[in-house]
Amino acid sequence: MSQEIQQLEADFRQYVKKIEDYGQALAVLAWDSRTGAPKKGVSERAEVIGTLSADVFAMSTSEEMGHYLKELSKKPTYKQLSDITQKTIDECFKTYERNAKIPKEEYKEYVMLQAQSESLWEEAKDKADFELFRPNLEKLVEFKKRFVQYWGYEQHPYNTLLDDYEPGVFVDTIDKVFGELREKLIPLVKGVMESNHQPKTDFLFEKFPKENQKSLSLDILKEIGYDFEAGRLDETVHPFAIGINPNDVRVTTKYNENDFRVALFGTIHEGGHALYEQNISQELIGTPLADGTSMGIHESQSLFWEKFVGKNIGFWERNYDVLKKHSAGQFDDVSLEDFYFAVNQAKQSLIRIESDELTYCLHIILRYELEKALMEDKLTVAELPQAWNDKMEEYLGIRPSHDGEGVLQDVHWSFGAFGYFPSYALGYIYSAQIKEAMEKDLPNFDQLVKEGNFAPIRQWLTEKVHRHGKMKKPAEIIKDITGGGIDAAPLVRYLEEKYRRLYKF
Amino acid sequence: MSQEIQQLEADFRQYVKKIEDYGQALAVLAWDSRTGAPKKGVSERAEVIGTLSADVFAMSTSEEMGHYLKELSKKPTYKQLSDITQKTIDECFKTYERNAKIPKEEYKEYVMLQAQSESLWEEAKDKADFELFRPNLEKLVEFKKRFVQYWGYEQHPYNTLLDDYEPGVFVDTIDKVFGELREKLIPLVKGVMESNHQPKTDFLFEKFPKENQKSLSLDILKEIGYDFEAGRLDETVHPFAIGINPNDVRVTTKYNENDFRVALFGTIHEGGHALYEQNISQELIGTPLADGTSMGIHESQSLFWEKFVGKNIGFWERNYDVLKKHSAGQFDDVSLEDFYFAVNQAKQSLIRIESDELTYCLHIILRYELEKALMEDKLTVAELPQAWNDKMEEYLGIRPSHDGEGVLQDVHWSFGAFGYFPSYALGYIYSAQIKEAMEKDLPNFDQLVKEGNFAPIRQWLTEKVHRHGKMKKPAEIIKDITGGGIDAAPLVRYLEEKYRRLYKF
Repeated sequence: MSQEIQQLEADFRQYVKKIEDYGQALAVLAWDSRTGAPKKGVSERAEVIGTLSADVFAMSTSEEMGHYLKELSKKPTYKQLSDITQKTIDECFKTYERNAKIPKEEYKEYVMLQAQSESLWEEAKDKADFELFRPNLEKLVEFKKRFVQYWGYEQHPYNTLLDDYEPGVFVDTIDKVFGELREKLIPLVKGVMESNHQPKTDFLFEKFPKENQKSLSLDILKEIGYDFEAGRLDETVHPFAIGINPNDVRVTTKYNENDFRVALFGTIHEGGHALYEQNISQELIGTPLADGTSMGIHESQSLFWEKFVGKNIGFWERNYDVLKKHSAGQFDDVSLEDFYFAVNQAKQSLIRIESDELTYCLHIILRYELEKALMEDKLTVAELPQAWNDKMEEYLGIRPSHDGEGVLQDVHWSFGAFGYFPSYALGYIYSAQIKEAMEKDLPNFDQLVKEGNFAPIRQWLTEKVHRHGKMKKPAEIIKDITGGGIDAAPLVRYLEEKYRRLYKF
Repeated sequence: MSQEIQQLEADFRQYVKKIEDYGQALAVLAWDSRTGAPKKGVSERAEVIGTLSADVFAMSTSEEMGHYLKELSKKPTYKQLSDITQKTIDECFKTYERNAKIPKEEYKEYVMLQAQSESLWEEAKDKADFELFRPNLEKLVEFKKRFVQYWGYEQHPYNTLLDDYEPGVFVDTIDKVFGELREKLIPLVKGVMESNHQPKTDFLFEKFPKENQKSLSLDILKEIGYDFEAGRLDETVHPFAIGINPNDVRVTTKYNENDFRVALFGTIHEGGHALYEQNISQELIGTPLADGTSMGIHESQSLFWEKFVGKNIGFWERNYDVLKKHSAGQFDDVSLEDFYFAVNQAKQSLIRIESDELTYCLHIILRYELEKALMEDKLTVAELPQAWNDKMEEYLGIRPSHDGEGVLQDVHWSFGAFGYFPSYALGYIYSAQIKEAMEKDLPNFDQLVKEGNFAPIRQWLTEKVHRHGKMKKPAEIIKDITGGGIDAAPLVRYLEEKYRRLYKF
């Protein structure tokens, strides 16, 4: 490699490192804003975030960045660069292209519309008044359609939207796996609902003092191997995990004194996200690659720990006494079996975020089908509420009584996040594929969970998923793990076996 | 005002606002680093802070900044600008000049020396080995002397160092007030030590559970009027208050279960700093003026609340029961009088940060005299330990047994902060001057404290001190309050009266 290219690579990496440093500052500000930053400081904080975000945008689309990308992308040069630099170029190129292709004025209009729409959506949701939100939603859909034209697309315009969240996964694959899932889930949900064998759940809602839930959450995070020297646990309204860098990955949770499940399973879920980011290879720090590879793979990690560990009977054979010790006595007369059935209860819900693992994917499939129809011009925004309610009835057998518990329930569309929802269901699908593959290498999986011996499980996940960060695309991860493609069968097998057993049908 | 000037003023203010936004991000990062950021993230964090700090430095000394300052400082233009813009120019000019006058290479060397010296100092202090630290300290002193030459000075080189911390206060004033203070304090301390009437203090050191101290701290902050909607209380190792902006001013404290005084009086002290910053005028946000005007005035506010409120007998007539309620019973057999005498105990100490309000200023005067002698070439670094010990014996009647409890005890010199120490004693002097002046307007001061009616006291301080931020220099604040200059007499009167009364001599 010529000295000139060496220098160019070093300069580029330095420049990218600076953008990443800004990104880390923004991540700390975001974490702070959501974990107790004082109310009165909100508007000043927004300006600080605005200033730093504008700088990140400017650097990502600068002439300097353009120059690096142009020079380093030349084939003979590119081939000489390190793997990490190559993938960094790919990531930066994607961002550069995305931003460069939209006329500045139009993008500014879009950002203003986003800001305006989020509060309008909130009002519309509270009033259950879709008409209030409709004009903005129409504009947001129009913007996204135009953006797709600017960006270009292959096969289907929705593919370009997917690329923001699940790069390399396309509509044809999703149609196939979501279709299979839908066909299997609808009768399974029906079977569960009609079963005579239903869990008792009243004891779930007794008072579990907040301080006790907090110490329980800390114990459980330690149990699954979350590294507190590279993280911390805080309280928030809408729980999240955030990776500032692999050495500083923070978990947040929410304590509901009348429903301990929110904090307990929420903490395991966010802990799963955090384990992913804590175990990303240190050599990726300072590049955009030190991050989860996609929304879906990220969700697969949180779901893996929440479902296959946190809802494993072996986990509770080991930890039910720990739970009892922290609680104020609510489980004293509850057998392990009754407890286990209760926390695995499945029940249709109108609200996605309140639904369980059996019904969750149907909520997502519904949204995906509507988004795709909007992008294909097969559905208008005005027709959305009716279409939503019809599908809800078809898939789950229940119908919203107003749009506040129907089409208006999620925030995503209000900031133009079309193409985001499928990741959630892909996360479920991936997690089950990963679990089946892991059991080939670790046939004693259930025993490991029962013993609290999570190191082999973490090592397996680190080796196959975590350490790679964005060095591998989602489909590559799945291929290298399973030898095949994205496949709904393992998730169906898991749900069929578990819910037929629990509900005895 | 011409449109051209209007535009230039607007552009300048916009540019300054951007620097301030970066400053706010840095303040959040600093707060986060000191309140529980994960250990393993320390080195990444240092790089992020380094990147943003370098940008702030670059913007503060950029050609663009130079252009604004040059154009807007022209007399006919300057006179047309708003007060806030004028003072902003003055502040920016000072920073610009300071940074521009030092050759870049030399400054870089200095920064590296600083970084190296802080850990070396720590080691030297632990080993009580001055020789280990001496070569670095010599270099730091040489750098500072050279910097003073670059920056220029009037009357005395030390004046230029003072300007960083106490702008507008000069050596001749400090010599005079510190001299008076020293002459009065030495015999007063002697009188206290020789008195037969000494407090019982054993009950101070009984166990006060941390959680109880925390709720006590929250109650006391509310009591003095700290606004929790514009702030929060957290735990840390070395307590501080930090103003991110006037709507987000955070307090930290430390809980020692065997000495509740650390958290209680520490929280009131930091709360005093915080009240200052919370009450800075909102119109100064986005300029460098939305900050305390000097270290000394800042300290006067924390000391005002700690000493004149928190150690006022009326405050305890009102709050002793509150304290008892939070404690685990340690005061049950202690009369209010005995409690009050105990928390006002005066005792010589070798260590500045462990000393009380009676002896504190002597620790500062000692440091000031040594720093000045170093800058005047009347003392070498090698002679420092001996000079330190001799003065300690002369002023407080005690002599360090090693340099770890003598010349090596403070961190300040290890990062080149010469000229900083006097602010602490100036804070004491100012606070007593302010208190005497306040009593002319609020002759019922003691009654207000006894009633917990702090609003008139806060309003007075806001009107005379807080709201101005950096719009007024320290000496201007004191002049407008007292009609005169900096004067040690009120502090001497306060200490004389209080300690003769308590110790009966």
